Parts: sequence; structure tokens; C-alpha cells
Amino acid sequence: MASIVTCIAPVNIAVIKYWGKKDEKLIIPLNDSLSGTLSMDQMHAKTTIMASPNFTKNCIWLNGKEETFDNIRLLACLKEIKRRAQEDGTSKELLSWNIHVCSENNFPTAAGLASSAAGYACFVFALAKLYKVKGDVSQIARQGSGSACRSLEGGFVRWHMGKSSDGSDSLATQVVPASHWPEMHVIILVVNDKKKKVSSTSGMQRSVETSDLLKHRVAYCVPKRIVDIEKAIKSKDFPTFAEITMKDSNQFHAVALDTFPPAVYMNDVSHSIVDLIHCFNKVKGCTKVAYTFDAGPNACLYLLEPTVAETMAVVDYFFPSSNSKNTVQGLPVPPCNAKETVKAIEALGMQRQGDDLLKYVIHTQIGEGAKQLMDSESHLLSANGIPLRLV
Amino acid sequence: MASIVTCIAPVNIAVIKYWGKKDEKLIIPLNDSLSGTLSMDQMHAKTTIMASPNFTKNCIWLNGKEETFDNIRLLACLKEIKRRAQEDGTSKELLSWNIHVCSENNFPTAAGLASSAAGYACFVFALAKLYKVKGDVSQIARQGSGSACRSLEGGFVRWHMGKSSDGSDSLATQVVPASHWPEMHVIILVVNDKKKKVSSTSGMQRSVETSDLLKHRVAYCVPKRIVDIEKAIKSKDFPTFAEITMKDSNQFHAVALDTFPPAVYMNDVSHSIVDLIHCFNKVKGCTKVAYTFDAGPNACLYLLEPTVAETMAVVDYFFPSSNSKNTVQGLPVPPCNAKETVKAIEALGMQRQGDDLLKYVIHTQIGEGAKQLMDSESHLLSANGIPLRLV
Repeated sequence: MASIVTCIAPVNIAVIKYWGKKDEKLIIPLNDSLSGTLSMDQMHAKTTIMASPNFTKNCIWLNGKEETFDNIRLLACLKEIKRRAQEDGTSKELLSWNIHVCSENNFPTAAGLASSAAGYACFVFALAKLYKVKGDVSQIARQGSGSACRSLEGGFVRWHMGKSSDGSDSLATQVVPASHWPEMHVIILVVNDKKKKVSSTSGMQRSVETSDLLKHRVAYCVPKRIVDIEKAIKSKDFPTFAEITMKDSNQFHAVALDTFPPAVYMNDVSHSIVDLIHCFNKVKGCTKVAYTFDAGPNACLYLLEPTVAETMAVVDYFFPSSNSKNTVQGLPVPPCNAKETVKAIEALGMQRQGDDLLKYVIHTQIGEGAKQLMDSESHLLSANGIPLRLV
Repeated sequence: MASIVTCIAPVNIAVIKYWGKKDEKLIIPLNDSLSGTLSMDQMHAKTTIMASPNFTKNCIWLNGKEETFDNIRLLACLKEIKRRAQEDGTSKELLSWNIHVCSENNFPTAAGLASSAAGYACFVFALAKLYKVKGDVSQIARQGSGSACRSLEGGFVRWHMGKSSDGSDSLATQVVPASHWPEMHVIILVVNDKKKKVSSTSGMQRSVETSDLLKHRVAYCVPKRIVDIEKAIKSKDFPTFAEITMKDSNQFHAVALDTFPPAVYMNDVSHSIVDLIHCFNKVKGCTKVAYTFDAGPNACLYLLEPTVAETMAVVDYFFPSSNSKNTVQGLPVPPCNAKETVKAIEALGMQRQGDDLLKYVIHTQIGEGAKQLMDSESHLLSANGIPLRLV
């Protein structure tokens, strides 16, 4: 009889960035990192894994397309989970069966929104459920895609780089649960972009090899920031949280630029968003919104719920859509008259940008970690182990 | 009887960047810097200074427009030169007369091409001639605009930060004269840009206050680079010279980005130029062209004379002008068929950019330092001390 599980896992957005590996194979990072977990109501990866004596080989379908299982990172995760399962006494029979994996994101992969982190977190979490593995599996998810380890838990999560050379203590732990700071919302501004980009894997490898500034960031800047931002999160001190978040994003992109040849992820639109947020905070007289950018041009804004409506109104004005308003996905945004704020921002020299520089906008909040879906309608595979969307 | 002198001074383009002051008032830098002096045949500042017992006050005209003399940096330079003149035995009478200053650049100030460096170098050099001051005046020019001290000499020039707290040993010396490396040419790509920019004075001040990475750059990166690039220049080792130049430009912009709020000077076009140069060098199999960017979006390319024609052909292809070719000012550029190189660059993923992203192009070379013009037709002031263009 076959065994099947279906799980979902969230996207996470780092506020202290992971950039650079100490060990390329085991994916041990050069520094601790820290992220917010985004609500799965808006964005998640969903994975069904089925093990059956009838399967002649391991198969995987990603977003409806069959991919090769002959992927070093995929195999590393599977091997590690099986090793742990054996230790935990899982039946040898179950472990001997081949598996079918079907995984989907409910958001465009192309958006460059850390989809591999959610995907690997979901894969490893589902495997752990399938094989009834106990204890922390973040150190296994890490070997799929580094930042995947931060997508297992909800709230704010810290990935400790660890000290051991085998990576056994390089794992993620929850700093605070989502319920600690329920006002924390997130707006993602997806930027229209055509440029071919440097993959983050090769970009960070090149930074490790060529950037002198990365060494300083790792040794002196991040250790202090991690302590300070953890404290700010625990005490719900938004201005401190926001300032560290923005500075760390800027520093990560500075290091990418100090790489040779340089790795450039932000574009003119990204930098205009940065300008706008600094103007907005200046007009408000205190830090109300933080920006952060991953290895791509999209902005992720951290802000408290009462600031959402005005921020969106201001974004709509300065980054107009030819349909008059930007398409917002996710949580509803209440209407807001931001005329006075807009006027004050314009007085600071900020100019209204051209039409349609933003592709779309996602409004979400901090949410829970990966979880198993117990209802059988959730499965993505048929009783025969074929993706339902292909049946 | 009045006294009059007219001098010209060149623009310089740093290959090791000056960014950050140890002393804001005396303009003592945090690190040594090094630049190439551009030929005055293409670009220069020209200044006439006249002293007369008939002048009722000090006056200054910049590019045809009268400006206030009540400028702290202008007055600091004048005071220092007069102090030195007294030491050198210049007549008290001459020193007691008021002066009229008329200064013009033969290139657009708006181009963001370090016009203040050439302008202050010319002002201080002309004052030194007027008052017959002996010895180094670069430490005085430095107090007008830091990098002005590097515009007094030709060839390659190093600004030593010095050790003294009074700035007396913070001065510029020639590394090699222009004749040492006559093949060294420079192409300036002036980028169309509308963005209001952060002035370099306030940008570097903010970097000193907020960038952790600047500290590391100053303490560890620049000292090594200065030694290495000086060696490369002396031995005419272009690839080493070029690589250090590009890395230092990238690092300077990385530090500007690590500033809070960030100071962003390069734009998408600047970064596309960087991409193009890396592709060009890759196709050529060795480093043939170096880019460097000051506090603005314009690219300055250092390259040897035999590479000029092909580089311009490639630039023309990837940054097309709606008039089919970009307007090149300065030295002539021979025609060149770069079809094979263009094809190879496109195979690397480089895309042809939109029309008219470049405003114009200047082709020049390394040249001589500031000098006095002895013919009386050169003067910009009439016998009465009025700008000729206003007479």
C-alpha cells in the first residue's frame, strides 16, 4: 500500500542577508541571517510526495513539468532524510520504495521571489512527514537551498551559521512566532525587468572569491546587526528594525557591486523605490517603512498595518499604472487620501515615475511555518502517483 | 599698473578614488588617490586673474556669470596663497590690491566631469603665478576642491593623504609624466540622465558617518591598490592597471551604496556599459579596456590607442544613436569593422540598447599639467578687468 503526504511551506524574506558560503557542498554560510516568514494565505509552495512499491524510479514534477531527479541537491536532501529516518526506526520497506514528488508554487516563479527556498523547505518537510523523521530538519533543507532552512518556521527566523565543519549546527530557529508581532505587514513591489541576471548561487560564489568588503561585512557588520535586530524584533521596536533592515539590504548590494565582475541586482526602478521610502519616512518624521531587496530588482517593504493604506496610495501615485491603479494581490488595501503626503514628498524633489514600472503588488503579512495538509483533497498526485493536473 | 595672468588646467580622472575626508575644513582625505591627467587639447579650465589698485573689491565670473566671492573655499585658497607669497617676498602693494577672476571651462559643466577640480587647480595655479609663489601649491588647491590638487601635474598623479593634522603633507606628486605612456587614451561616455544627484561633498560626508565598509576600504583595500597600480603604471602593465581601476571604481560605488541613505551615482546605462566592457574583454581574451565612474553616471574608459577604433565601433553598435553614430568630440576615431567582435559579444548575452542613451562621446589622452599662457590674446579680462565676453 502506497504512502502519501502533502505539505505547504512559506516564502521568507531576509532582513539580515545570507550572501556567501563557507562550504559550497554542505551550504554552510559565512554569516548568520534572519528573515520574516510570509503568510501562506498569499504565497506558498505545495508539495505532495508519494512512496509506492509500484514506482519503478523516483520522479519529480515542478509546476506541472517533469524534471530530472538527477540533481545533486535534491539527492543530498533525500539521502539525509533517509539516514535520519533509519535512525528513527522507520520501516526499511517504506524507505526502499521509490517516490513521486509533485510541487507547485501559487505565485509566479519568474517573479524572483525566493521560490526555491519555499520549494526545498516544502520538499524536505514533506519527506520528513512521509518518513516520520523527528527533530530539526532545517539543516537538511539548508542543503537543498540555503535560505530554505528559514522557511520551516513561522514568525521571524534566524539561521545560525554554526561552528561545526560538518554543518550539523548550521540550522534555523524561531526568534518569535507570527503571533508576537501581528501588525507586521509586507508589501512586495514586483518590478518590470528584462535584464538577464546573475544567479544568486554564482553571484555569491564570485563575491566570496573577489570582494574584500564581504570579509569585513561577515566579520564585523553582521554579528552586531543580528543581535540588534533580534532585540528590536523582540521588543517590537519598528524604527530600529526598519533601519537595520534597510542598511543590511544596501550593504548586501554594495558587496555584490564590489564583486568582480560586479553582480548588479537592483535597477533604476529599485533605486527610485529606495528614494521614495526615504522621502516617505522623512515626511512622516520617523521610520514608518523599510525596504529590502533580494538578488533581483523587486522591493519588499516591511511596515506596520496602520501604514499600509497610505504607503500604497503613495506608491500608486509615484509609480503609476496605465490602468490608474496598480494591481494588488493578497490582502485588501483600504483606500486612502495621501494628497498631503504626496505633496510633501514632491517638495523633497521626488518625481513621479513613468507608467507601468511595477508589474504587480502583493500585500501580505508575517505568517506560520510549513505544515502538513491532512485533507485528502489537497494531494497533487492521483492514487497512481500521476500529477492530477496531467490526468 | 595692474598685473594679469592667464592659465589653463586639466581635468583628471581618478583610477584610485578619493572618497571621504579626515578633516572637512582642511580637506584632508581618508586615503591616497591616484589619477590620470587628461589632455588640455580637448578639455580644460581657463582662468585669468588680474590685480589692480583700481578694483574696489574682489570679483569672480564663472562661465560668464558673476558669482559671489564670499565662498569659504575660494577665500581659503586666496588667503593661503597670499601667506605663502609674503614668505616668498612678494610686494606688499601687489598683495593689497583686489583681484578680478574670470574662469571658463571649454566643456559643459553639467556633464559632471570633475569641472570643479580643473577650476580650482587653475585658480590656485594662476594665483601662484600672479604672486610669484614658489614650490608646491597642490596642498592649497586641495583646500578648494580635494581632487583639484591632482590637476596641477600631467601624466599620472598621486595625492598623498599625508600624516600631519595641519594638512601640510597632504599633497599631490607626479607618478610618471604623460610622455611615459603616450599610448594611454581615454574615452568618456556622457550618459543622458535626468536624476537629481547627491553632491559628492555631501555623499562622501554621509559615507564617513554611516558606511562601515568605507572604514575597511580605507584601512585595507586602498593602501595595497595604490602600491600595485603605481607599479603597473611604471611598468606599463595595462591589464593590471585596468583591473585595479575597475575594481576600485566598483568599490567606491559599493561604499556609496552602503551609505545611509544610499548615494547612488551609476544608473542602468552605466551598468550596461560595465557589462559591455566585461564582455569585450572576455571576447578579446584579455583586459583591453577599463571603466571607471566618478560621482555620476558617465563612464570613463582607459584604453591603449590601438584599441580605440574597435571599442568605439562596439560602443556605437550597442549604444546606438538615432543619427546612426554617436557624436565624438576630441581626437579623431578611425573607422573600424567590429562585426565579429559584436557577434561574439552578443553570443555572451549582451543586448543592443535603446537609442540615444549616450549624450556624446569625448576621445582624449593623457596630457600635461596646468600651465601659464604667455600670449596676451589669451586673457579673458579686458584692460579694465571686465570679462571680454561681456564687453
